[in-house]
Amino acid sequence: MAKELKDLTKRSENYSQWYNELVVKADLAEQSAVRGCMVIKPYGYAIWEKMQRQLDDMFKETGHVNAYFPLLIPKSFLSREAEHVEGFAKECAVVTHYRLKNAADGSGVVVDPAAKLEEELIIRPTSETIIWNTYKNWVQSYRDLPILCNQWANVFRWEMRTRLFLRTAEFLWQEGHTAHATREEAEEEALKMLHVYGEFAEKYMAVPVVKGVKSANERFAGALNTYTIEAMMQDGKALQSGTSHFLGQNFAKAFDVQFVNKENKMEYVWATSWGVSTRLIGALIMSHSDDNGLVLPPHLAPIQVVIVPIYKNQEQLDLIDAKIAGIVANLKALGVSVKYDNSDNKRPGFKFADYELKGVPVRLVMGGRDLESNTMEVMRRDTLEKETVSCDGIEAYVKNLLEEIQENIYQKALKHREEKTITVDTYEEFKEKIEEGGFIMAHWDGTPETEEKIKEETKATIRCIPLEGDKTPGVCMVTGKPSACRVVFARSY
Amino acid sequence: MAKELKDLTKRSENYSQWYNELVVKADLAEQSAVRGCMVIKPYGYAIWEKMQRQLDDMFKETGHVNAYFPLLIPKSFLSREAEHVEGFAKECAVVTHYRLKNAADGSGVVVDPAAKLEEELIIRPTSETIIWNTYKNWVQSYRDLPILCNQWANVFRWEMRTRLFLRTAEFLWQEGHTAHATREEAEEEALKMLHVYGEFAEKYMAVPVVKGVKSANERFAGALNTYTIEAMMQDGKALQSGTSHFLGQNFAKAFDVQFVNKENKMEYVWATSWGVSTRLIGALIMSHSDDNGLVLPPHLAPIQVVIVPIYKNQEQLDLIDAKIAGIVANLKALGVSVKYDNSDNKRPGFKFADYELKGVPVRLVMGGRDLESNTMEVMRRDTLEKETVSCDGIEAYVKNLLEEIQENIYQKALKHREEKTITVDTYEEFKEKIEEGGFIMAHWDGTPETEEKIKEETKATIRCIPLEGDKTPGVCMVTGKPSACRVVFARSY
Repeated sequence: MAKELKDLTKRSENYSQWYNELVVKADLAEQSAVRGCMVIKPYGYAIWEKMQRQLDDMFKETGHVNAYFPLLIPKSFLSREAEHVEGFAKECAVVTHYRLKNAADGSGVVVDPAAKLEEELIIRPTSETIIWNTYKNWVQSYRDLPILCNQWANVFRWEMRTRLFLRTAEFLWQEGHTAHATREEAEEEALKMLHVYGEFAEKYMAVPVVKGVKSANERFAGALNTYTIEAMMQDGKALQSGTSHFLGQNFAKAFDVQFVNKENKMEYVWATSWGVSTRLIGALIMSHSDDNGLVLPPHLAPIQVVIVPIYKNQEQLDLIDAKIAGIVANLKALGVSVKYDNSDNKRPGFKFADYELKGVPVRLVMGGRDLESNTMEVMRRDTLEKETVSCDGIEAYVKNLLEEIQENIYQKALKHREEKTITVDTYEEFKEKIEEGGFIMAHWDGTPETEEKIKEETKATIRCIPLEGDKTPGVCMVTGKPSACRVVFARSY
Repeated sequence: MAKELKDLTKRSENYSQWYNELVVKADLAEQSAVRGCMVIKPYGYAIWEKMQRQLDDMFKETGHVNAYFPLLIPKSFLSREAEHVEGFAKECAVVTHYRLKNAADGSGVVVDPAAKLEEELIIRPTSETIIWNTYKNWVQSYRDLPILCNQWANVFRWEMRTRLFLRTAEFLWQEGHTAHATREEAEEEALKMLHVYGEFAEKYMAVPVVKGVKSANERFAGALNTYTIEAMMQDGKALQSGTSHFLGQNFAKAFDVQFVNKENKMEYVWATSWGVSTRLIGALIMSHSDDNGLVLPPHLAPIQVVIVPIYKNQEQLDLIDAKIAGIVANLKALGVSVKYDNSDNKRPGFKFADYELKGVPVRLVMGGRDLESNTMEVMRRDTLEKETVSCDGIEAYVKNLLEEIQENIYQKALKHREEKTITVDTYEEFKEKIEEGGFIMAHWDGTPETEEKIKEETKATIRCIPLEGDKTPGVCMVTGKPSACRVVFARSY
């Protein structure tokens, strides 16, 4: 293990390899025996649980409830919405049989051909179709609206090139699916949830995001509008971190979900859907971590504070244990998640490196001299700075330090994004600058053709048309046609 | 809706139909478009969330961590453990392809024959195989043990006859999978989790359970010992509510998971697995509910207290609203989940019936006279008793009442089980008494053959060999051979 720590590739050498190694070495996740599917290990899952708990609270505060819909979807449901099937058909895992039987030659089990399904079922790549087929029975009148459901679930998209957390065949996510009586209310809901995602990213993940709307090319299959939060990773690439879709009446029409409105007329229901996934863990890692390992934001760190004793003999350890017990209890009372690691099978140096790798925000160390002087050494993971602090009131000190670290890593990420965001007016300059990474603010004529040309020639896509910021019109850098405002270009994950 | 409430079949008329109707009318769950798969509606899911939160806390208190393993399992993994594949092969959903394509005739999408998997994947019916294949890489030495992982997940077993919550093709559950260095430690773990389940059932669900060990016939496929908690429903049938398995070294051998023990010798790892599922919601309903609808234990009720105003005009409602606001705030401060329903689109009588149907443990009503006299009418759902209580200190009164209801429904269920548990010594009497339902304590010679004969002739199975209680030996009621102790027979769900 100590060897592994040293072996972590540096970001400057190979950012992509650094990420892949870090996910495994920090015990977050690993590849499974099933192609493209990951095992989320306990430490990685603990981060997901913290994210879930916080997001779930935010969804409930905004009036949503959880429900659960089937994993499997009849194949024919997909075809009901033309763009939706176009978007997902090529990556569907298909269930065709419902039984195995013993092989005639005794070699194991084989698929029982007699147990073939009349209609194949697909593992949900997303649940709009099965949910709108269900909502049909829930909605008769405007009094039954809105429906504000969220689902925590696994979904499956057969991806050919996968990376842990960032792109996996199976992933965990939440998908909100809401039904409304009016277009305005549905549009408002889609934007509301975008802002919930934005707040979560910035306040909890400490990841600054640009909120905006996707161009037609990048829209969710079946949506009229897709809103997105886009984050910039340390290598300057963009990571789409959450999306919220205004679906119009597309799914209501596909599944014939009508209601009697206040004017006593039949109308199709208006819809939104919105989701974030375990991809957020990838965003978290790539935003803050360094060549020593993870740097976790205190608001989402499974262990916020680790305490390590350094001792000569059992007698001294007993004294330190006694002293630390009170501090641990006080920290817990302040709501701080703390681990006291006095295990005797690893040396302090090993523990230090391991907790650095794991991104624990604050490390406290107490040695023999500290015991005498009633002090501890405090190290913060974000800057690796150490200082000696009195044990009196150290709990409040640590609590404040956690907030300071949270704010510091956010500001650091924000500064990085600002430095790597530039404005460009000519396509020549664009092609040059895009090689350096980062976000490029440029004018675009609003057509899919121009966007496609830029993507082919530079591998950059329009990440979003920002909701906020400069709205000065201009001319497209490629075609010279009018442009309503600058949009965000970047290469992306 | 009001009509629906009245239409609930009475338990005495048709217990099975009563259950099916209640699940749907109380908005807990419904059938989906996919055969055997249910939609868990928000009210039903809210109960599951309460169960999850409590169980998860109990698992963590006993040292467990959560992780996540793949949904899909290579078909060949199943064959590695002979009994395991025998137990599950006949109910596996099989994924054979990974892509759809447009039908040549434009009629929709069809399975793309070019996207056939080399090896089929099955949707996990349980995860022992994929998890032990993963543990192989996690364990080298006794220092890597124990591994104490739990997973919250969906699983799939292609059942031919399904019932909402009790038996569905897809269900939600948790599955603990632990790995140990010694046989003793694994056996202790299996028993420890049985007791956690027992405590959860009794303290939170208010469902008394018999803890015991399964006979060989009823053992989990691949286990050396299966422990179970068995509850008695109101119709006298047994419901297996949770199981904990001592798996010996079976899966370690199947997946070659060895470790270097303290004596520096290679040894196979010892295993347990344990799980409870959304079936618990079925157990909850069938244990306590009545002809008016659900009766939920306060410890798991999504809404513990509902407050309904009765008013003549807006002015009076404003006064009641103002009065209730303080009571709601005080109840919340006491940790009580409370809903104030002053919606004006339903009459009080409708609301009363609806909240009775939904099993809300306590209902408070404030009318004009109550306002004057500073009182409220308090109704408890378990007994339907009403009384008038002063608003001064009503919060503490309600909080105590919730605990009283929790205890009362537990005692009621316990009394019912005791009344319906009888001792029988002859097979003649057994055959007569089993028709009346309930648990029958009888002697059995310990052989699968005798158990099978009893099952064929009476539809009763051995629910468990109890861990506690009378251990007096006797003779088998069927064969007259020696019996170590009485075992629990019942018909079951």
